[in-house]
Amino acid sequence: MRCKRCRTKPVALKLPRHHTALCSDCLDHYVVDQVERAIRHFRMFRRDEPVLVAVSGGKDSLGLWDLLHRMEYRTTGVHIQQGIGGYSTDAEVKTRAFAEARGLSLVVHDLEREYGGGVTAMADMSRRSACSACGTVKRYAFNKIGRELGFQVVATGHNLDDEAARLLGNLLRWQVDYLAKQSPALPASHAKLIRKVKPLFRLTEQEVAAYAVLRKIDYVIDECPMSHDAHSLHYKAALNQLEHHAPGTKQFFYLEFLRRQPLAAAAGAEEAILNECTRCGEPTTGTLCGHCRVVEPLRQARQSEPAPASVSPVSPVSLDWEA
Amino acid sequence: MRCKRCRTKPVALKLPRHHTALCSDCLDHYVVDQVERAIRHFRMFRRDEPVLVAVSGGKDSLGLWDLLHRMEYRTTGVHIQQGIGGYSTDAEVKTRAFAEARGLSLVVHDLEREYGGGVTAMADMSRRSACSACGTVKRYAFNKIGRELGFQVVATGHNLDDEAARLLGNLLRWQVDYLAKQSPALPASHAKLIRKVKPLFRLTEQEVAAYAVLRKIDYVIDECPMSHDAHSLHYKAALNQLEHHAPGTKQFFYLEFLRRQPLAAAAGAEEAILNECTRCGEPTTGTLCGHCRVVEPLRQARQSEPAPASVSPVSPVSLDWEA
Repeated sequence: MRCKRCRTKPVALKLPRHHTALCSDCLDHYVVDQVERAIRHFRMFRRDEPVLVAVSGGKDSLGLWDLLHRMEYRTTGVHIQQGIGGYSTDAEVKTRAFAEARGLSLVVHDLEREYGGGVTAMADMSRRSACSACGTVKRYAFNKIGRELGFQVVATGHNLDDEAARLLGNLLRWQVDYLAKQSPALPASHAKLIRKVKPLFRLTEQEVAAYAVLRKIDYVIDECPMSHDAHSLHYKAALNQLEHHAPGTKQFFYLEFLRRQPLAAAAGAEEAILNECTRCGEPTTGTLCGHCRVVEPLRQARQSEPAPASVSPVSPVSLDWEA
Repeated sequence: MRCKRCRTKPVALKLPRHHTALCSDCLDHYVVDQVERAIRHFRMFRRDEPVLVAVSGGKDSLGLWDLLHRMEYRTTGVHIQQGIGGYSTDAEVKTRAFAEARGLSLVVHDLEREYGGGVTAMADMSRRSACSACGTVKRYAFNKIGRELGFQVVATGHNLDDEAARLLGNLLRWQVDYLAKQSPALPASHAKLIRKVKPLFRLTEQEVAAYAVLRKIDYVIDECPMSHDAHSLHYKAALNQLEHHAPGTKQFFYLEFLRRQPLAAAAGAEEAILNECTRCGEPTTGTLCGHCRVVEPLRQARQSEPAPASVSPVSPVSLDWEA
């Protein structure tokens, strides 16, 4: 079967939702084009603006970093060492190797060094799921590290499957307040927040995986061992089943939501008022921020002194490589 | 394992979403209670008011009729003979037998006798899916027959799975206008429309099936042979998968939607303005109603004269049994 675009090379990937099938070269063009469209449409960042890229070591985040670097954006990576045994070691090794091979700057933030324990310990101590604890601490670190290093924007590797699954979850639970915040480009709604963008939101997980393979990126293939029963995986499985029967379901579901988002936001969501956390000073809707609620039980168990409000809980970061 | 309610009889059905398991007697109480709650909460109909019950011959509609009859509501059944071979013959036989055994009135509306062809022919001629053609013609007939016989309300056997699947489909396609109309109790929004109610909306498909089995109702077990790839079946399968991992997902999704419905309706849905169909005079949002668009190609193919606007396309109905 020949590529439906160039009609010469053999097909590398079928894209049923676009009624097409592409060879490796045309798939590469397609992926770059979709990312460029996403960045331009949502004015995510300019070509001369430094962008912090959150990299886990998986296909999505390394694929994103590879894309932005090739597209000549000014990128620095930030990797959170979660302390989940061999999985995290492997992720850090692959992320460091990726950056080194391309001469890219990378910041590594080690949770065990920082808090005396990784995601598993934090989840246990704070009685949260590992995914909840991890997500809270990661979002906190991306924003704080980014801001302290002078970045105004952080990019994550969330793809169409991630966003559609999150939307489905928010609708199944009618978390209307979350709908208003589910955008591929979140503005800095507080002086201490930097912008958050998701340049891969137009590409499916399968398309990003194919891109990473074609680009010979050495990424962590395993899913995180803590996420085996995460709701998001069940939402993705349900959507994949529906996509199989009606290609385009996921894309229409999420992109049409974005088109209608002002309406959804009007339907009951209230603008959150942000305070500063009484412990760490970072923005929060409450008094003690989610991050401090997650890490404090672990800190106390480690018998270290609680950090006063004026002291940052994030270590001075190290730039391992300069671009 | 003993019933969690009476603690004496063995369990007939587990209800994970309610963290319980019931024996046959307690399940019966539960089902009757849920239906009574549904009827009262939405003021579906009074006990002295005649109710037309749409009966296909399946577990849901015969289960509903059985329930309403036991609960001493004043019911008459209406059955559409769809002309889908042995499946429809079986459905009509079982529906007639159910009514006869209980001395209940039943109206049978035969599509082949009426239009010269059944659902399959209508779908082919009007280039619609069988489910779309069937649904359009059935809704039309229930309303017209009900009104002409003096009923002000028609009840259908839609259960929680049906309603949650429909809601999921409407959200995946962002059919916001449909959301406003997705209620267990639709008012008569036009002089020629009667109320439409769904007293089983609080019960899952499995619960209704268990009720029908316990009541020894002889219903059609097979799914309609035309519906094997219907979207609704895929939505149900996806929701069942999610329910399995998180019991209560379906119920929360639909009941919380109902609670928030005024908000959803405000988010872009416009109140439909109803005209009268230029051919048959029944209410429609356009000029020619959906029913006439479905049946007209078949009528013309049968070389019968098109019915003038003043003549009803529904035959005088026959009351086979008087209650």
